Amino acid sequence: MAEQKLTKEQMEAKAAQPGIDAMKLHPFYQGKVEVVPRCIVRDFSDFAIWYTPGVAKPCLDIRDNPEKVFEHTNKSNFVAVISDGTRVLGLGDIGPEAGMPVMEGKALLFKYLGGVDAFPICLDEKDPEKIIEICLALQPTFGGFNLEDFSQPKCFHILDTLREKAHIPVWHDDQQGTAAIIFAGLYNSVKFVNKVLDKVKIVLVGAGAANIRAAHVMHKGGVPWENIVLVDSKGTLHKGRTELQDGFKEKWELCQLTNGDNVVGDIETAMRGADVVIAASRPGPGVIKPAWVSQMAKDSIVMPCANPVPEIWPWEAKEAGARIVATGRSDFPNQVNNSLGFPGIFRGTLDVMATTITDEMCIAAAIELAKVAEDKGLREDYIIPSMDEWEVYPREAVAVGLKAIEQGVARKKYSRDELMKIAEAKIRHAREETALLMKEGFIKPAPKE
Amino acid sequence: MAEQKLTKEQMEAKAAQPGIDAMKLHPFYQGKVEVVPRCIVRDFSDFAIWYTPGVAKPCLDIRDNPEKVFEHTNKSNFVAVISDGTRVLGLGDIGPEAGMPVMEGKALLFKYLGGVDAFPICLDEKDPEKIIEICLALQPTFGGFNLEDFSQPKCFHILDTLREKAHIPVWHDDQQGTAAIIFAGLYNSVKFVNKVLDKVKIVLVGAGAANIRAAHVMHKGGVPWENIVLVDSKGTLHKGRTELQDGFKEKWELCQLTNGDNVVGDIETAMRGADVVIAASRPGPGVIKPAWVSQMAKDSIVMPCANPVPEIWPWEAKEAGARIVATGRSDFPNQVNNSLGFPGIFRGTLDVMATTITDEMCIAAAIELAKVAEDKGLREDYIIPSMDEWEVYPREAVAVGLKAIEQGVARKKYSRDELMKIAEAKIRHAREETALLMKEGFIKPAPKE
Repeated sequence: MAEQKLTKEQMEAKAAQPGIDAMKLHPFYQGKVEVVPRCIVRDFSDFAIWYTPGVAKPCLDIRDNPEKVFEHTNKSNFVAVISDGTRVLGLGDIGPEAGMPVMEGKALLFKYLGGVDAFPICLDEKDPEKIIEICLALQPTFGGFNLEDFSQPKCFHILDTLREKAHIPVWHDDQQGTAAIIFAGLYNSVKFVNKVLDKVKIVLVGAGAANIRAAHVMHKGGVPWENIVLVDSKGTLHKGRTELQDGFKEKWELCQLTNGDNVVGDIETAMRGADVVIAASRPGPGVIKPAWVSQMAKDSIVMPCANPVPEIWPWEAKEAGARIVATGRSDFPNQVNNSLGFPGIFRGTLDVMATTITDEMCIAAAIELAKVAEDKGLREDYIIPSMDEWEVYPREAVAVGLKAIEQGVARKKYSRDELMKIAEAKIRHAREETALLMKEGFIKPAPKE
Repeated sequence: MAEQKLTKEQMEAKAAQPGIDAMKLHPFYQGKVEVVPRCIVRDFSDFAIWYTPGVAKPCLDIRDNPEKVFEHTNKSNFVAVISDGTRVLGLGDIGPEAGMPVMEGKALLFKYLGGVDAFPICLDEKDPEKIIEICLALQPTFGGFNLEDFSQPKCFHILDTLREKAHIPVWHDDQQGTAAIIFAGLYNSVKFVNKVLDKVKIVLVGAGAANIRAAHVMHKGGVPWENIVLVDSKGTLHKGRTELQDGFKEKWELCQLTNGDNVVGDIETAMRGADVVIAASRPGPGVIKPAWVSQMAKDSIVMPCANPVPEIWPWEAKEAGARIVATGRSDFPNQVNNSLGFPGIFRGTLDVMATTITDEMCIAAAIELAKVAEDKGLREDYIIPSMDEWEVYPREAVAVGLKAIEQGVARKKYSRDELMKIAEAKIRHAREETALLMKEGFIKPAPKE
């Protein structure tokens, strides 16, 4: 692997480069998405069809039959990327304006990778009850909600309430999205080192939205509760953590279920002898020490997922003896990145007009994602596909759509082949459209250095 | 004019055609706008710039200086087209889903005519206080709000409160937008028939959002209060309409100001001897009778603006003696259509990053719009430019931008030439981009009959 031939200084410089480029290119492009027509404008008389007076007829058709909104508008492909800016990346509560570059970037990924017309919605509102009200009120426009970067613990309450009350699918990418990709990475890593999922000991560093959900998904996916140990800022979760009983019901529930050996202590203690450590805590480096990695079991799997800087640099983990290392960054191998999940998962969800996204749909996507890599041959530096593997997204979409149909949450039913054709056409449209806009100068070339 | 050679039946058939086409083409295109990238995607490593990890740097830059959100994102060109669906076109409370085709159509017009990245937001919420809360919470994403099709009287309260509390420009198109275009049409019509603005008697049929605002704009634009008579469903507004005192403060205020001759009665009474009748009431035909038009002053000006069907068909008004007829429909001459205003007005507002849209900015746009027609020579069937006159939008944008700078509400200052260049470039981008997407098949050709 190329980066292992570099010095640490060179690797750190490489890791800093995207931020330097971002500060140049963000002001140059001034935004990452725009809105364009998707209907014909032959001449100005067409506006009598698209707007008044012609538009009155589709309006009345929807008034008489609300489901027709899916036929007459782009609702079925509109997704809101909603955040209040209280936990943006690993940067904490930086506010809704400061969250805009992330949400706009996410909208870009939704379109380019999944053919989804996503739009950033950054809310100047921190009260969870009001956030729920706003989201419910926004439903008529959208086919789904992607919640993003809400702080804990309100993110659980917001997601649970919206999933109960909304009539469109609601997804919190920092919970279900991250959990799905972590599970895909875990699934293939364990297989690669010839271990089995129901025997490995797993330490989850950080007990935030991502890891709490990941624990549940792992359990549903085959890992016994007792083999999972979570660690938060005060140490391992165990039955003695009674201070969590009030106000942290998700953590307290895991105190009861996990940590079969009742390990009490810090990250180092928890990691001793573990097969897998998955961190989704706070930006590193230095959150996980190389010495702790050295004390793990043979063929250890280390997944430090914090953004923008992982809890331990990948080269440090490797030097300390890790067999497989995966991070959240796109500039290192094995990126455990949500971008591998949400575009395909939403593509499949929207294509069958599902009313919700179940955990089973997420797991179906994760296993399909894992299989894409397995089909090509797993390697230490290839346990998860990367974003540039075209087939990832339509394959996930098909897996998700079929699972939704199987579970009875799909409004539309298609065969596997039909689902594949639909997903491929929409994703190809997005990719080729972007290429065309660049070729013809509607997206300007990047400035020279 | 071609349509005057047609029979009434042919004209009615022609008037019905856009609705027929709309019912075919809406399901075919399934939506009128989509979201596309506006930044370069050379390869997948660019996502390390646009998303994690690189994006963290612009986020932190905005956290430290919130105004930088205008540099690092497309906020400055995002406009929300917001409605609760309680008064869609002239169709009444048809609900937020049924409002979607209109709001999406408006987003299309915003882009194609004004180069503005507008996005439809249909709210499942009717309580004005909650609508205000939601709009305030949505501010971080947008450069401005276009309120649309809110019922009376809440629309006044929503607009006034948002203009007071929001830090981005808020516009209710059914108030300021319609008022601006009506004023432009009035301005040129009166000139064309050799009358003067401070002498004409004007009847406004309907005392809804549009006409109430129009009365104020006309007054600011030179029409004496006493020469204006408004008529609502109970008859003319006059000092004796004391039942309006509670709950209809905007109407009651006009009872005091307008109707200098204290005309008491119905539409017919009010129209007798009037120079101008402007209707923005409810869909016709038959709301205004031909016989009433015949009783107006010589060279009468008749503007029945209801959508989708005007209060009197244009050919009926003409046969009854009207000299100039203007309607809200794009398929007849002299379209008094909001689409002539909001795209250029928002273009100018956004280009100088104005903090609000003042009445004076609206009037500046209206007069510039009127001048575009005057520059080419006014005719009975050409008192207002039509949407296909390219120069309308940049000229309005410049007039609005200069007025904003003059009034001290602009964050950015430019010269007339600079403003023209900026507006032209953005509008040209939108038009040429649409043409390209059609040419290359990303927007499909319409199906054959």
